[in-house]
Amino acid sequence: MNREKLIEAIANKRSFLCVGLDTDIEKIPQFLLEKEDPIFEFNKAIIDATCKYAVAYKPNLAFYEALGAKGMLALEKTVNYLNSLPQEVFIIADAKRGDIGNTSERYAQAFFNNPDSKFNFDSVTVAPYMGEDSVKPFLNFDGKWVILLALTSNKGAFDFQLVQSADGEKLFERVLRISSQWGNDENMMYVVGATQAHMLADVRQIVPDHFLLVPGVGSQGGSLAEVAQFGMNNNCGLLVNASRSIIYAAQDENFAQAVQNEAEKMQKEMAQLLEEYSKI
Amino acid sequence: MNREKLIEAIANKRSFLCVGLDTDIEKIPQFLLEKEDPIFEFNKAIIDATCKYAVAYKPNLAFYEALGAKGMLALEKTVNYLNSLPQEVFIIADAKRGDIGNTSERYAQAFFNNPDSKFNFDSVTVAPYMGEDSVKPFLNFDGKWVILLALTSNKGAFDFQLVQSADGEKLFERVLRISSQWGNDENMMYVVGATQAHMLADVRQIVPDHFLLVPGVGSQGGSLAEVAQFGMNNNCGLLVNASRSIIYAAQDENFAQAVQNEAEKMQKEMAQLLEEYSKI
Repeated sequence: MNREKLIEAIANKRSFLCVGLDTDIEKIPQFLLEKEDPIFEFNKAIIDATCKYAVAYKPNLAFYEALGAKGMLALEKTVNYLNSLPQEVFIIADAKRGDIGNTSERYAQAFFNNPDSKFNFDSVTVAPYMGEDSVKPFLNFDGKWVILLALTSNKGAFDFQLVQSADGEKLFERVLRISSQWGNDENMMYVVGATQAHMLADVRQIVPDHFLLVPGVGSQGGSLAEVAQFGMNNNCGLLVNASRSIIYAAQDENFAQAVQNEAEKMQKEMAQLLEEYSKI
Repeated sequence: MNREKLIEAIANKRSFLCVGLDTDIEKIPQFLLEKEDPIFEFNKAIIDATCKYAVAYKPNLAFYEALGAKGMLALEKTVNYLNSLPQEVFIIADAKRGDIGNTSERYAQAFFNNPDSKFNFDSVTVAPYMGEDSVKPFLNFDGKWVILLALTSNKGAFDFQLVQSADGEKLFERVLRISSQWGNDENMMYVVGATQAHMLADVRQIVPDHFLLVPGVGSQGGSLAEVAQFGMNNNCGLLVNASRSIIYAAQDENFAQAVQNEAEKMQKEMAQLLEEYSKI
């Protein structure tokens, strides 16, 4: 999915919601465990309940890898289902990959339309620590995106990402400045956590036009209104992720309705924020 | 495999060689393609040819993930085979993972003796960018190890890892200093590239006792003698990885003999270096 189509989807749905599919067999409604593939059945129900209100989906690879082969099969079916929706959605492999060039090439193959791996994601999250040659191999696929970690939503972000260099630049600012030369706003986005919403203003000084993927709203405590205030640009420029607060909204047989209500609630708030801060 | 057993294996085999299983279907001897599982057949042949000379094996996850389900099955068989060797070896999942706490927990489950994922690695490589809570979940498994990226062997290492903070500390030095408080030399190692061998002296100032996993000898150009000179401690404290230079030593039906010769050559050099720089 390219930038133009993504902006179009946001404009049409009046939403910049990304639903995180951190699907945990111990947290899904227990009646689903009787199904042949409970993980996929749950994901399908979540997608059906939210696709009117969400423009993006973000399966978290760790949750599928932890289940071995059956987890990877459930993920494959989920990605295929997302790709088959009548209204196209943006699909993120939240995998935090990154290695020397010849290895990053393999990861890129694994996630982007490889007939062997059977995955067809639009984007993959990548860690910046190993620098340019660890990121660039992901940029060689037409219409595909790198979503690079810049400032994450967790406590550990303070350990290294906020360290100031001799010239006063914080590490995450350096990551933004340097890496924005490796690609452009049509093949790179950045992860910037909602728990540091006021820092979105600094981020926008360095990358005014890039899309930002913002985790940390909901269970992690970030504020959607602040994220929009400090981070939104004319084309919206945001994908705000919510995982646990949406997908585990209820546990009974009618859980899908509760999930839909949560997604709709976020979409309504997002529609107002788009009105206030963007031009789409 | 715990620290004591690892040091014992190094002392017995007179080797600190790690063989990197970056197995590429396009580079393995072509006659293997007729077998039902060419990747596993190749890995098994490599392991049989080198296990007298190597103390550790490091499958590179990207190469298996890029092949989808059949790649993951070949990896599972490889790890099982490594665990079944009469002389125990140290098994590294070279995966460069790392995410917020609840997600890192899942990755740790995926790699460390999880009945669902069927993997039983001794260790996993982890990226430090997301800080303490992204690393600690991997340290909660008895006898298992985190191998944290500090200074990598690629050109991109210069982009961020060598940036000096206001107080003169380079980022990789800060990673070593801070993270060494999260665990100890019985559950943490560090990746330090051989292409920066002289910097191993700096590394040893900060973490004198930890084991270091050193990639970059061989195809990437690092010198084994320099690595030992600057990086070895009394207990050896090194695992030096070679991937392409060993596993693709030959392409014909007798490739295993060429592979064995390469491993033996490195082991002989390592035996001399252990004599010169260690006390085991």
